[in-house]
Amino acid sequence: MNQQEKTQISQLGEFGLIDRLTEGISLQNASTVKGVGDDAAILDYQDKQVLVTTDMLMEGVHFDLTYMPLKHLGYKSAMVNISDIYAMNGTPRQMTVSVALSKRFTVEDMDEFYAGLKLACQRHGVDIVGGDTTSSLTGLAISITCIGECEKGKAVLRSGAGQNDLICVSGNLGAAYMGLQLLEREKAVFNSTEHESGTAFNPDFAGKEYLLERQLKPEARGDIIRELQEAGIQPTSMMDISDGLSSELIHLCRQSNTGCSVYQERIPIDYQTAVMAEELDMDVYTCALNGGEDYELLFTVPLTDHDKVIQLKDVKLIGHMTRPELGRHLVLKSGLEIELKAQGWTSNL
Amino acid sequence: MNQQEKTQISQLGEFGLIDRLTEGISLQNASTVKGVGDDAAILDYQDKQVLVTTDMLMEGVHFDLTYMPLKHLGYKSAMVNISDIYAMNGTPRQMTVSVALSKRFTVEDMDEFYAGLKLACQRHGVDIVGGDTTSSLTGLAISITCIGECEKGKAVLRSGAGQNDLICVSGNLGAAYMGLQLLEREKAVFNSTEHESGTAFNPDFAGKEYLLERQLKPEARGDIIRELQEAGIQPTSMMDISDGLSSELIHLCRQSNTGCSVYQERIPIDYQTAVMAEELDMDVYTCALNGGEDYELLFTVPLTDHDKVIQLKDVKLIGHMTRPELGRHLVLKSGLEIELKAQGWTSNL
Repeated sequence: MNQQEKTQISQLGEFGLIDRLTEGISLQNASTVKGVGDDAAILDYQDKQVLVTTDMLMEGVHFDLTYMPLKHLGYKSAMVNISDIYAMNGTPRQMTVSVALSKRFTVEDMDEFYAGLKLACQRHGVDIVGGDTTSSLTGLAISITCIGECEKGKAVLRSGAGQNDLICVSGNLGAAYMGLQLLEREKAVFNSTEHESGTAFNPDFAGKEYLLERQLKPEARGDIIRELQEAGIQPTSMMDISDGLSSELIHLCRQSNTGCSVYQERIPIDYQTAVMAEELDMDVYTCALNGGEDYELLFTVPLTDHDKVIQLKDVKLIGHMTRPELGRHLVLKSGLEIELKAQGWTSNL
Repeated sequence: MNQQEKTQISQLGEFGLIDRLTEGISLQNASTVKGVGDDAAILDYQDKQVLVTTDMLMEGVHFDLTYMPLKHLGYKSAMVNISDIYAMNGTPRQMTVSVALSKRFTVEDMDEFYAGLKLACQRHGVDIVGGDTTSSLTGLAISITCIGECEKGKAVLRSGAGQNDLICVSGNLGAAYMGLQLLEREKAVFNSTEHESGTAFNPDFAGKEYLLERQLKPEARGDIIRELQEAGIQPTSMMDISDGLSSELIHLCRQSNTGCSVYQERIPIDYQTAVMAEELDMDVYTCALNGGEDYELLFTVPLTDHDKVIQLKDVKLIGHMTRPELGRHLVLKSGLEIELKAQGWTSNL
């Protein structure tokens, strides 16, 4: 579709746009009493506890629309919040979505964004129950709040790990970061060639689709939460990995007042991540430890759950908690222990 | 304090800033099980229903820092969300606060913003339980979600008004809009004189303090909700007036499938609002009908509650609902009926 054929948001107005975007939302949860359309949504959680998490995503800081399609952005924006509810051992149920957009965004752009949002919500059983749609002077700002439930007393905090607990991680790490490197590289190539007439832009993504998917379409690990419940495992502490394993391990240790030993060779890394790191001449373990946005789960279980936890599909034991005075260490293949450092994404602020 | 003495946010980092801003938050509500510091907050509403509302405020669109002190902005940002919970006949209990800020904001700026937020929350018994602090390329973006409770079945929607219900409004209307006009006028004077050396900026606000307060420091009407409860009145429909009386009346009528007749001479207007309108050569009723941001409550009660509702302090009866085919009308002092039109703030989008 050409830009000319697109619909300016001013043609619909705020209420028209909201009506269009929320059209066809059918509520899936018994806990949603009243969704979009009033001063507030009404929820009824009966005897469950309520979990609330929120995230803000700013254009140019958290995402780059040069290579992030709006549908993927909607999907990912929903997913990072859904992931936080799972990370509490909860089940996501509702979401409010606020967007502020500048004049360059059209109604069709918002359709795309909402299509991604709705897909993520549908897959994870989440009802969109409210939000705000407004204008911004520059760029796109997104703020999402996700609400979920858990049985009374079953929420898992970051602060509950014991000193000998086993440290586990789901899936694999570093792939989303490698996906970002790949996209940034192709963007640089594109920018340097765009003025040569007749040059077609053919980004070189062959064999690296998995990395792109991990960056553009992350999947919150509700399956792991269900696996844990089915196996009768109640983690002692848990969080999702959004800023990188090192940084998150430090959070768990600080909040639980423990140290930790994590074994380098046990950190799960996908083949494509390793190949890409090699290609970029980067250390793959550094990427896995400090690259963010994998949205895998990091959790601890009591030693007594060892036999159960090693049976879990797509969960890997990477180390154990220790007494706090022993510090937080990465044990290299050589046996050398080095201190874990948070490199995370604080430089964004 | 000079800009030079201020602390750059990069000196504290994201986590340092969050620690500083959330320091000294003491939880006031039994329903707050776990506040700031994990992937999500944990709430326990027992047998109550949960209300959730959210609002996004963008610099340059919703506020102008030229005349809006950051402390007032924090106060107002909290208040507009608290107001939405009251507008459901609920009690606000928790809030999440997300801010995205550009490099020009310092740690002290955020202290000011949070001081206002905390004051508003303290006054209305609200716990700050989470949020997100991140960076933006330009300006300040604020997104707040407020969570509240109400007894099962007691929430008041926009859609419940009956055809002969009485229409009531709290406080007075148009003052916040007049406050904005005043601030805009003084800003224009300031801008036109700032290059004249030796010219002191002395904004002329004498006798108009109330208008400024209504614009800069609105107060959500929890007192009215308590009055209604004490009087044993359950409104049939309710909302808060953020976009102007006309626009909100149209919402109530559409969602309740009614018409309405509202009497011009019954619309409550403060003396200062009238004086300021005269000074600006504006029609004061137009301001009261279409000016936004008063955050008063608009609600309907059954005819049978007439004698109770006229006893309420600071509540005025302004008209009644009608059959939908009769349309939505403003009855002028002359007896002439004119159709209500929404002029609201949709032009912002």
